[in-house]
Amino acid sequence: MLRALTNNASIKAAASARHTTRLFSVSASALQKFRTERDTFGDLQVPSESLWGAQTQRSLQNFDIGGPRERMPEPLIRAFGVLKKAAAKVNVTYGLDPKIGDAISRAADEVIDGTLIEEFPLVVWQTGSGTQTNMNVNEVISNRAIQLMGGELGSKKPVHPNDHVNMSQSSNDTFPTAMHVAGVIEIQHRLLPAMTSLRNAFQAKSDEFNHIIKIGRTHLQDATPVTLGQELSGYVTQLSLGIERVNGSLNNLYKLAQGGTAVGTGLNTRKGFDEKVASAIAEITGLPFKTAPNKFEALAAHDAVVEAHGALNTVAVSLMKIANDIRFLGSGPRCGLGELSLPENEPGSSIMPGKVNPTQCEAMTMVCAQVMGNNTTVSIAGSNGHFELNVFKPVMIKNLLQSVRLLSDACVSFEKNCVVGIQANEEKIKKIMNESLMLVTALNPHIGYDNAAKCAKNAHKKGITLKESALELGVLTEEQFDQWVRPEDMLGPK
Amino acid sequence: MLRALTNNASIKAAASARHTTRLFSVSASALQKFRTERDTFGDLQVPSESLWGAQTQRSLQNFDIGGPRERMPEPLIRAFGVLKKAAAKVNVTYGLDPKIGDAISRAADEVIDGTLIEEFPLVVWQTGSGTQTNMNVNEVISNRAIQLMGGELGSKKPVHPNDHVNMSQSSNDTFPTAMHVAGVIEIQHRLLPAMTSLRNAFQAKSDEFNHIIKIGRTHLQDATPVTLGQELSGYVTQLSLGIERVNGSLNNLYKLAQGGTAVGTGLNTRKGFDEKVASAIAEITGLPFKTAPNKFEALAAHDAVVEAHGALNTVAVSLMKIANDIRFLGSGPRCGLGELSLPENEPGSSIMPGKVNPTQCEAMTMVCAQVMGNNTTVSIAGSNGHFELNVFKPVMIKNLLQSVRLLSDACVSFEKNCVVGIQANEEKIKKIMNESLMLVTALNPHIGYDNAAKCAKNAHKKGITLKESALELGVLTEEQFDQWVRPEDMLGPK
Amino acid sequence: MLRALTNNASIKAAASARHTTRLFSVSASALQKFRTERDTFGDLQVPSESLWGAQTQRSLQNFDIGGPRERMPEPLIRAFGVLKKAAAKVNVTYGLDPKIGDAISRAADEVIDGTLIEEFPLVVWQTGSGTQTNMNVNEVISNRAIQLMGGELGSKKPVHPNDHVNMSQSSNDTFPTAMHVAGVIEIQHRLLPAMTSLRNAFQAKSDEFNHIIKIGRTHLQDATPVTLGQELSGYVTQLSLGIERVNGSLNNLYKLAQGGTAVGTGLNTRKGFDEKVASAIAEITGLPFKTAPNKFEALAAHDAVVEAHGALNTVAVSLMKIANDIRFLGSGPRCGLGELSLPENEPGSSIMPGKVNPTQCEAMTMVCAQVMGNNTTVSIAGSNGHFELNVFKPVMIKNLLQSVRLLSDACVSFEKNCVVGIQANEEKIKKIMNESLMLVTALNPHIGYDNAAKCAKNAHKKGITLKESALELGVLTEEQFDQWVRPEDMLGPK
Amino acid sequence: MLRALTNNASIKAAASARHTTRLFSVSASALQKFRTERDTFGDLQVPSESLWGAQTQRSLQNFDIGGPRERMPEPLIRAFGVLKKAAAKVNVTYGLDPKIGDAISRAADEVIDGTLIEEFPLVVWQTGSGTQTNMNVNEVISNRAIQLMGGELGSKKPVHPNDHVNMSQSSNDTFPTAMHVAGVIEIQHRLLPAMTSLRNAFQAKSDEFNHIIKIGRTHLQDATPVTLGQELSGYVTQLSLGIERVNGSLNNLYKLAQGGTAVGTGLNTRKGFDEKVASAIAEITGLPFKTAPNKFEALAAHDAVVEAHGALNTVAVSLMKIANDIRFLGSGPRCGLGELSLPENEPGSSIMPGKVNPTQCEAMTMVCAQVMGNNTTVSIAGSNGHFELNVFKPVMIKNLLQSVRLLSDACVSFEKNCVVGIQANEEKIKKIMNESLMLVTALNPHIGYDNAAKCAKNAHKKGITLKESALELGVLTEEQFDQWVRPEDMLGPK
Repeated sequence: MLRALTNNASIKAAASARHTTRLFSVSASALQKFRTERDTFGDLQVPSESLWGAQTQRSLQNFDIGGPRERMPEPLIRAFGVLKKAAAKVNVTYGLDPKIGDAISRAADEVIDGTLIEEFPLVVWQTGSGTQTNMNVNEVISNRAIQLMGGELGSKKPVHPNDHVNMSQSSNDTFPTAMHVAGVIEIQHRLLPAMTSLRNAFQAKSDEFNHIIKIGRTHLQDATPVTLGQELSGYVTQLSLGIERVNGSLNNLYKLAQGGTAVGTGLNTRKGFDEKVASAIAEITGLPFKTAPNKFEALAAHDAVVEAHGALNTVAVSLMKIANDIRFLGSGPRCGLGELSLPENEPGSSIMPGKVNPTQCEAMTMVCAQVMGNNTTVSIAGSNGHFELNVFKPVMIKNLLQSVRLLSDACVSFEKNCVVGIQANEEKIKKIMNESLMLVTALNPHIGYDNAAKCAKNAHKKGITLKESALELGVLTEEQFDQWVRPEDMLGPK
Repeated sequence: MLRALTNNASIKAAASARHTTRLFSVSASALQKFRTERDTFGDLQVPSESLWGAQTQRSLQNFDIGGPRERMPEPLIRAFGVLKKAAAKVNVTYGLDPKIGDAISRAADEVIDGTLIEEFPLVVWQTGSGTQTNMNVNEVISNRAIQLMGGELGSKKPVHPNDHVNMSQSSNDTFPTAMHVAGVIEIQHRLLPAMTSLRNAFQAKSDEFNHIIKIGRTHLQDATPVTLGQELSGYVTQLSLGIERVNGSLNNLYKLAQGGTAVGTGLNTRKGFDEKVASAIAEITGLPFKTAPNKFEALAAHDAVVEAHGALNTVAVSLMKIANDIRFLGSGPRCGLGELSLPENEPGSSIMPGKVNPTQCEAMTMVCAQVMGNNTTVSIAGSNGHFELNVFKPVMIKNLLQSVRLLSDACVSFEKNCVVGIQANEEKIKKIMNESLMLVTALNPHIGYDNAAKCAKNAHKKGITLKESALELGVLTEEQFDQWVRPEDMLGPK
Repeated sequence: MLRALTNNASIKAAASARHTTRLFSVSASALQKFRTERDTFGDLQVPSESLWGAQTQRSLQNFDIGGPRERMPEPLIRAFGVLKKAAAKVNVTYGLDPKIGDAISRAADEVIDGTLIEEFPLVVWQTGSGTQTNMNVNEVISNRAIQLMGGELGSKKPVHPNDHVNMSQSSNDTFPTAMHVAGVIEIQHRLLPAMTSLRNAFQAKSDEFNHIIKIGRTHLQDATPVTLGQELSGYVTQLSLGIERVNGSLNNLYKLAQGGTAVGTGLNTRKGFDEKVASAIAEITGLPFKTAPNKFEALAAHDAVVEAHGALNTVAVSLMKIANDIRFLGSGPRCGLGELSLPENEPGSSIMPGKVNPTQCEAMTMVCAQVMGNNTTVSIAGSNGHFELNVFKPVMIKNLLQSVRLLSDACVSFEKNCVVGIQANEEKIKKIMNESLMLVTALNPHIGYDNAAKCAKNAHKKGITLKESALELGVLTEEQFDQWVRPEDMLGPK
Repeated sequence: MLRALTNNASIKAAASARHTTRLFSVSASALQKFRTERDTFGDLQVPSESLWGAQTQRSLQNFDIGGPRERMPEPLIRAFGVLKKAAAKVNVTYGLDPKIGDAISRAADEVIDGTLIEEFPLVVWQTGSGTQTNMNVNEVISNRAIQLMGGELGSKKPVHPNDHVNMSQSSNDTFPTAMHVAGVIEIQHRLLPAMTSLRNAFQAKSDEFNHIIKIGRTHLQDATPVTLGQELSGYVTQLSLGIERVNGSLNNLYKLAQGGTAVGTGLNTRKGFDEKVASAIAEITGLPFKTAPNKFEALAAHDAVVEAHGALNTVAVSLMKIANDIRFLGSGPRCGLGELSLPENEPGSSIMPGKVNPTQCEAMTMVCAQVMGNNTTVSIAGSNGHFELNVFKPVMIKNLLQSVRLLSDACVSFEKNCVVGIQANEEKIKKIMNESLMLVTALNPHIGYDNAAKCAKNAHKKGITLKESALELGVLTEEQFDQWVRPEDMLGPK
């Protein structure tokens, strides 16, 4: 065991062994069978049963960085499936043998539905254009299509990874296309529903708590009253605007690079290919994708990803504020603010019996910190493109997809395990609100700011109520106080 | 002098002394005359001639952080002038003495046009609500209005800083209102014109260079050809989209917090006040400001500022890429890429005679690095609001305005001193393009990918031209080569 | 398939199904058998064969965020094994039954060597104190020890997860202890060896290339000569200093929170426990861990992690610079700088035959971008602790360990697949160096800065050599030029 | 006024006019007198009285970015004075005319003590090597030395800016040298004293409050007791370690680039020059500067600045935590935690009479947010160096110096205006601590975790005290409770 700790090689071997199946057996199992594949760099042994081929295998060996957790995100692989299916369909209209096109399409379907996910072992930390993952997809779809047509794995016949699956394409336009498709699908099908549902849950709570008058707090200090419903309406607005922001950022993600090929000119593709592929992708996904008007920009820069992540960053900023408020308002139970009771979901302490903690808020705020840092990563990566190609594509899409996934799941979890179960401690809320000195603000129009300030300071100094202080100072009568200082009259303009 | 270096106190004193006039003389000059002012905390000596009053003076003494360079940004002060003028106008409709309203309005005009800028000595690093700057504005406008009406400085008569200038307002709604007004004005009148002009300059260059065929580069490596005009069209698109992004972020900046007063409820203001003030501000500025639908959100969170800075961040990412490309393409003159000649604006080296450097690109990329870091600051600040108030307001607006200003000025400088003077070194461009091995891509359809790869690798290995290599390998004839390998045919799909 | 894309639920189900085994079967398999466990919140069904118990199961259900890729990092789990073993050993000295202590120790060994890794299904995004992972460890070790002693899974007898495995501990001190132990082990056994090896590889290259005189470049523009060895010596220095920086940051990571229990006071533990546990951990790991002098700081803040990640950030900054240089110097082969030839590891393009790209540099720079963003995450998380506990612990350690792992693996890959195979294109280097106009700097002492500048500008304008220009201007003789302008004399002070 | 708002040109003109004196008059005043200067780019009009010359003037015109607030930081200018004085001294030993050396030295003294600060109008956003500021310094010192020797301004005789003031130097080594010198001086003379003093103030408070037992809080929830002194000791530790971190980062800042000249080789300088200059700087400043062992690294990378800012970032993280705690503990006065009373320094609200806010905490946390963002800027800038020179020097030193200044001043202000005046509300502290249910933890050893949990949950549910709950459940006697549940026994291990 000590050896395991101090021997780097064994740590790595053990780590790989546990998490992987094929990956590990490639290098370690004596029983593994191999087939020989070749690319322009020569021969290479590939596991016999693998659908991937030589270029994938080469990348596996050349980029042993981070282990299986750092594999290309699954939504990206699935988006590649969508793209390859769409391209096959369009290529048939330009002369691709329909039988081959159909086989590619069927193989692509299996990539889309996730059946073949174990065939994509490459990590994010590879070539910055994602070429190796594009080739991984080409190889897997080629071999799966060959299988479907009764051919031999690795023979490249009758479906060639480059000539057929990658027909009229380059990694430089397929990868950014898959980035956009994956980003949009995840945002549309995960994030926006999750945010909308959370917004609605807060709206329901805001309605439920609309009658509860409580102390407002500015600078963390007692201020004039608000209703708990008003307070929560701020969160509803933040989330509504957040949904708009995310939605707004889709506009540029809908624009696809496909058709730019190697450098944006569209060399070796056909006129109209770009628009047809975009249409086909739109049809498959039911989402309004379109071809990017300028392919040079679409390959060389990924400002659309930076923009979209900027929207996520703003959402993270909102959620950090909201989750912080909730846990502070729920702090206690005896020595905190104690205005809210949060659901008790699990034991809070291995040492303190009966302790319950705002754990959903904690998970949410940790997610927000991650998203805010990812924003830095995406920005740095986006700024470092050169000439005709940005070569930080994989790290950009990894961070975008991670941020989308974490925010989505955290919203769902936060809503289900926290927000819907929030209860207001009306008694405590009322008690401290009535003790507040800032109700004095209501006296400004009647006795002036200076006298009002005297009342508040006198009460604070002596630890008495505002009414006691006002009466002691003789600035008004008890009747006047009761008539003027009414929290329910302090909730809006006159 | 050694003492000056090693004695902290003297460094600070010296620093203050040099940069400030009033500020310094307040504390140091025996000749300075003072008047006594008072606030709810007691008496205070204020320079006799100052328009500011007790609360400003107190802040000056309590927040000696960063020195004069860290004063509240001028556009914010000017925006406060707009707001106070608008509020005075509306307050008259609710009963404010028109003579007082008029005096406030005239004094506010002097704040707007910058005449009184020296009366605003407070730094950004003060209370997080900006209360002290709101009071600074109230005090200065009050005293200036008193002067205009023939009254006595500091008498608070006939124009009271709180009761009249701040009527129906709270720092908690005025400061965020001024933030939005300042941000929008600076974006509309500085940034968007500067970006538009730079975009147009690149468009003109793209047109000018559209006939020049050059090597494309991906992964920094030789790729297939593009025209220089195509390459620059990518920048034009980035800037066009950047303009859209910034414009899009204005939507939420147009929404004003004014009317929320202390906690968002609008206590101590009047129904309709919020909408009327927004209209008045819209009228004064000629910009479509409107009242924020939810004032709780508008005080407690500044997501609109985070969103707007996110757009600036994306613009910085774009400009970093563009400026980097320009300087790399202009690198040389003998040992770099040397495709572009950048204007020579100044001697480049104090030791190397005749050296010329891409200094405008350097200024631009430094600005971009600053803006990207400011984005982190704004995000952190935005995420740390609590309950009814975000108390990172000053740092947020400072960073927003700095980013706007730097990007604006850098765009203007970059355009004027670099972009418009860029020249293409056509001879060099043509020479290296013709040497490129990646023209081999045009042979794919004719001799196949494998044979094409052999030609390229053979040429690379032997240091010969592609044509020589192809002929040596006997895969085609000279006529075929000349017919098939034509850069001018490689610039688009077929 | 379309449904798979547009139906969020099925995406999630499919995703879970593919990646997980137990996790999936818990919720989906009809054949799965369960046992009933209970905690203070009531009964819960746990998979019969699982070593984890009720609290782990509860967390699994309450924190469905991010999927299996977001599980707690393995090095943290292994570090927990070290800690629990050490604690058991020390607890025996305070009265724990030695048989129980021994069983805990043996079970902990299996956690350390990774055998039980599938028993730790919880994700990072849980309670911010990591309580649930501490309990996961307690439950697994308890059950495994029970197995070893022949007892019944889930019976908590004879080894209780809280009373025995967690004896004298709290999540609040175990989790930060495991954070430090994991961080140090990974840095010591992965990162420092990888960096040292890379540094040495650059040193060897620097030595190998020391005789090659080449053009220096400042502002990307031609400058005075350096040797290629000198240039690389800068990288060696950066890496050497980086190793020192990382090493320096270990000092505070060696300080362990263990013994602080719930709030830092050490309640419910024993005097001397903290020091004994630290010693035991030091003994097991062979690393100089010690008890933290102030446990309040050790629980409430994780500045040591922020500090350590700051060192990683600086390393990322260094490596970004180095990898960028390498790929620019290797750009070409015909149209770039072309001074270096980088190893060709794989086909570079799916469309351009024969293209080779600096892919290792790209993987490295992407890693650097990730680490720089992680630094923002860690800083935000570190700054948001409150009172006696920072509750961003899991996100902090996740980012630290990811950064360490990625930097380590990237250094190894970069060295092996790039650095050791770098070759200098001496002919090209010599050719462009001799064309450089900046050799003119050597003439300053002989003909003055002004005349030298004239020579350079004249040569640049007319496209002639420096010597031709100098002779044309008549400022020196050919003999003088040959004697004075000698690159080999321009490599150091006189 | 409307025009002023909507007319960009007038905004800029007005802005310049107000803040600047010389700068404005250069372009606008008809009365300004000029002298003609020339550099290698031709003739230029320079204000007659200015000590600066042609190159400064050229930069002023070419880099109109950001206005006067964006000028090079004063400590950098002063550090340049130190460097030029040191260089002059050393150059005399290599043959510089001692009279010229002496005049340079005297002029440099005036730069050091700040007398000439208005002669340095250039902004940060210029050439990335800072060449223009180096030339600004050379020109000013040259002209001032000429004045001192009775010569004519602008004549470059008898003291030439390049040949004498810049003798044996290049911007590429002077600017990074001045960066380090300025950084170290500011850290040594501002930051470390300020942090030390703040640490001591917290230590005194910790001692003062050591007898006060209060509720501990984890997850914001009630936990077991600590003393207020213990709680504050955590801050003392954070600050002590912060001081160590900052100190540790000085080690690499002490290494000076001077002597590397243009590209690190030291061309055109003399053997030993580097060490002598470093010694001279050490002597002038009384600080242990030394020459950098590898000048290539010292010019091409500024990892030492990234490292130092990383230390500042960690300090900002610490201070954010501390200031947040203070303001939360001081929240109230009636509806918050209310354990501390913070000094009341100014009126808190323009609408709520008597309101007092934790404004010093707010200023501090805003500073921390700025520093954390600056860390991103510095990291990005540091990572983008190329070949022999990093050309983000000005933005790096600007951010380092701003962070140092803001942290220093904020520490001083926070200590003076907040920390020393903090009072403990012992009554409130005692009251809520005694109500806490988490004292139940003390019962674990006596009645078991499960019974203890029942007591706590029963008390929480019914709103009764822990003792009442325990007696009601019959798990112990009143005497036992009073004997076992004693907060004063819960403050440490047994």
